[in-house]
Amino acid sequence: MSAVPPAHRTLRITLAYDGTHYAGWQVQPEEATIQSALEQALEQLTGQPIRVTASGRTDAGVHALGQVASCTLASPMSADTLCRALNACTPPDISIRSVSDAGPGFHAIRDAIQKRYRYVIQDGGFRDPFLRNYAWQTPARLDEEAMATAARLLLGTHDFASFQASGSPRVSTTRTITEIVVERRAGDLRDRIEIEVTADGFLYNMVRNIVGTLVEIGRGNESPAWISRVLSARDRRMAGPTAPPQGLFLVWVRYPGDP
Amino acid sequence: MSAVPPAHRTLRITLAYDGTHYAGWQVQPEEATIQSALEQALEQLTGQPIRVTASGRTDAGVHALGQVASCTLASPMSADTLCRALNACTPPDISIRSVSDAGPGFHAIRDAIQKRYRYVIQDGGFRDPFLRNYAWQTPARLDEEAMATAARLLLGTHDFASFQASGSPRVSTTRTITEIVVERRAGDLRDRIEIEVTADGFLYNMVRNIVGTLVEIGRGNESPAWISRVLSARDRRMAGPTAPPQGLFLVWVRYPGDP
Repeated sequence: MSAVPPAHRTLRITLAYDGTHYAGWQVQPEEATIQSALEQALEQLTGQPIRVTASGRTDAGVHALGQVASCTLASPMSADTLCRALNACTPPDISIRSVSDAGPGFHAIRDAIQKRYRYVIQDGGFRDPFLRNYAWQTPARLDEEAMATAARLLLGTHDFASFQASGSPRVSTTRTITEIVVERRAGDLRDRIEIEVTADGFLYNMVRNIVGTLVEIGRGNESPAWISRVLSARDRRMAGPTAPPQGLFLVWVRYPGDP
Repeated sequence: MSAVPPAHRTLRITLAYDGTHYAGWQVQPEEATIQSALEQALEQLTGQPIRVTASGRTDAGVHALGQVASCTLASPMSADTLCRALNACTPPDISIRSVSDAGPGFHAIRDAIQKRYRYVIQDGGFRDPFLRNYAWQTPARLDEEAMATAARLLLGTHDFASFQASGSPRVSTTRTITEIVVERRAGDLRDRIEIEVTADGFLYNMVRNIVGTLVEIGRGNESPAWISRVLSARDRRMAGPTAPPQGLFLVWVRYPGDP
């Protein structure tokens, strides 16, 4: 009598990572990526080649506090044991926060219903050396009140084509921003501006293009009302530059049934 | 007629640095150190070889929010201009917070009257990937109340010989701790324990040896009262292990006349 092989399961893996030393999420030949680190750890544990899918690809230098990935595998280990074992097999700049068994059809991209991103700016004065990989460090001091006023004009359902990276066609460029907050927060060495955005989905580079546009307003180059004209133009050339990747954090991803 | 050469001035330089990629403060052949980065920047600005002295040497991997260094140089630049120029010449993991003209005899080690250090511990659960270079990450969850109780027993003037690195003789091993606080603080991903200590001076490795001893108590291996026995033994072998360097931050240094 041979043992019954373990059935296939679909896992939901929540992970945090410091993206500084990675060429982004997606597997690329000859490059260290988050996806390949996670797939290697899963293969080490299960002896099977396993493909994981994330809620969205993060670019090189972008970080995550709560990225979600899904995969299918056969393993007799409990979800908690898999979590601990994966943490033992991943490098110290990637942490597995939790592993759970999801419904059989669970798919981290297709099923995501809401996401939150944070963008950190350290403006003016001396650079905080501890933020060099975790913020956009701009020499100019920014007017965060003007930025907050402008940000509120993006709330709701709009065609965000002006904030989509050029050359990235999607079926629809309409998204709904349910929250957008611009706040100056204290730090040990320096204060910083944090911009947090929640939406039902994001176009490619949408947060970084919104941030680049808000910074034009924070510098006083444009008024807050300008952002409404950028939005209605549906033309990437109207918006500000793309903010650099290292200030961006994927905070969380929500799925149906999540609290 | 030739121009009058600028007179020699004594500068007080306050700097912050991420010590991760440095072999500590002190110049060492073939190694990147904070001191050599600062001296190179000063030489680049003034054309003169300049020696700087810090309030104390930090070890490899140790960080500073407010290290103070002194040096003597001849330069016609204002202190503020020197500060901006130095920031332009130092790598992004070293920041010059301020430069000021000090009294002619100012000496960063000899004149220091008080210092504050912070030590960060991330205990239990999954590792926060953003703290891997900025905290001691221990798998065990620690009892911060027991650690705080023990820490208070170190307040005041004592012979701290038990907490001095072995083989580092000093004229006196008596120091006065005026404040020591152990607090659990929230973070984005994980909470952490922060230990802050203010004293009139520190023996070599004193903070890291105190922290290693407090962690023995936090793990439940020893009672809080044990630390008094360690203290009165005046024997390094009685104390806990030396905590690793990456959790340690020099917060500030005080000099006579400072507010």
